[in-house]
Amino acid sequence: MNDSIFTKIIKGEIPAYKIYEDERTFAFLDIHPKQPGHTLVISKKQIEFVWDLDDEDFAAVMITVKKVAAQLRAVLASPYVGMLVVGIDVPHAHVHVYPFSTNEQSRFVPDQSAEPDHAALAEMAKKLAF
Amino acid sequence: MNDSIFTKIIKGEIPAYKIYEDERTFAFLDIHPKQPGHTLVISKKQIEFVWDLDDEDFAAVMITVKKVAAQLRAVLASPYVGMLVVGIDVPHAHVHVYPFSTNEQSRFVPDQSAEPDHAALAEMAKKLAF
Repeated sequence: MNDSIFTKIIKGEIPAYKIYEDERTFAFLDIHPKQPGHTLVISKKQIEFVWDLDDEDFAAVMITVKKVAAQLRAVLASPYVGMLVVGIDVPHAHVHVYPFSTNEQSRFVPDQSAEPDHAALAEMAKKLAF
Repeated sequence: MNDSIFTKIIKGEIPAYKIYEDERTFAFLDIHPKQPGHTLVISKKQIEFVWDLDDEDFAAVMITVKKVAAQLRAVLASPYVGMLVVGIDVPHAHVHVYPFSTNEQSRFVPDQSAEPDHAALAEMAKKLAF
């Protein structure tokens, strides 16, 4: 099995705006955020769907999701934090966690071909890292 | 605190298309589904945001979400299962879990004022209950 883009991020072969890491999980900023602070929480195991993680790895991902949500509320004072699993684009289990204030923001679909705002991402990663 | 619509469902005061229940969680069909089989997993504790559940109740909700996802895949042979938390509409912690095949289906926003298709919901609940 070839390394996914997320495995390459975990290995440090592709740079990422890291927020958090523990034994089983890794969290970093989505470079095409729904809203600033949009974070991806991934399992360190390269398994296509979050639903196919064993119970321990699934629980570890969800505990990290809860920690990231708390961090988004604390640092960004966001009234809401959304969570989303799709699973079509990258075949490596991941969960989207993002702050938002309105239904429109929650539903916003970012343009994946846009040039990332690296200065804003670096600044946000500095604020959110824990 | 008044009972939320979800607490009334748990108490059996409002009918629902129940899929699953255990000590801490309850799962039933969303009557305005993104796709047929769209299920809501709720905590039996009436707490506004899923993020404010204690770790035990949060873990219980997520374990039920994982079970429902497995059920949707097994019974409906769905290629993808989505998970979504918004939290704007009902102030009682809940997680959306739904089968889908395309990005368009995953992003579909149902008309909340539409008349529910009760025959289809009853049929689906019978298929999915576990």
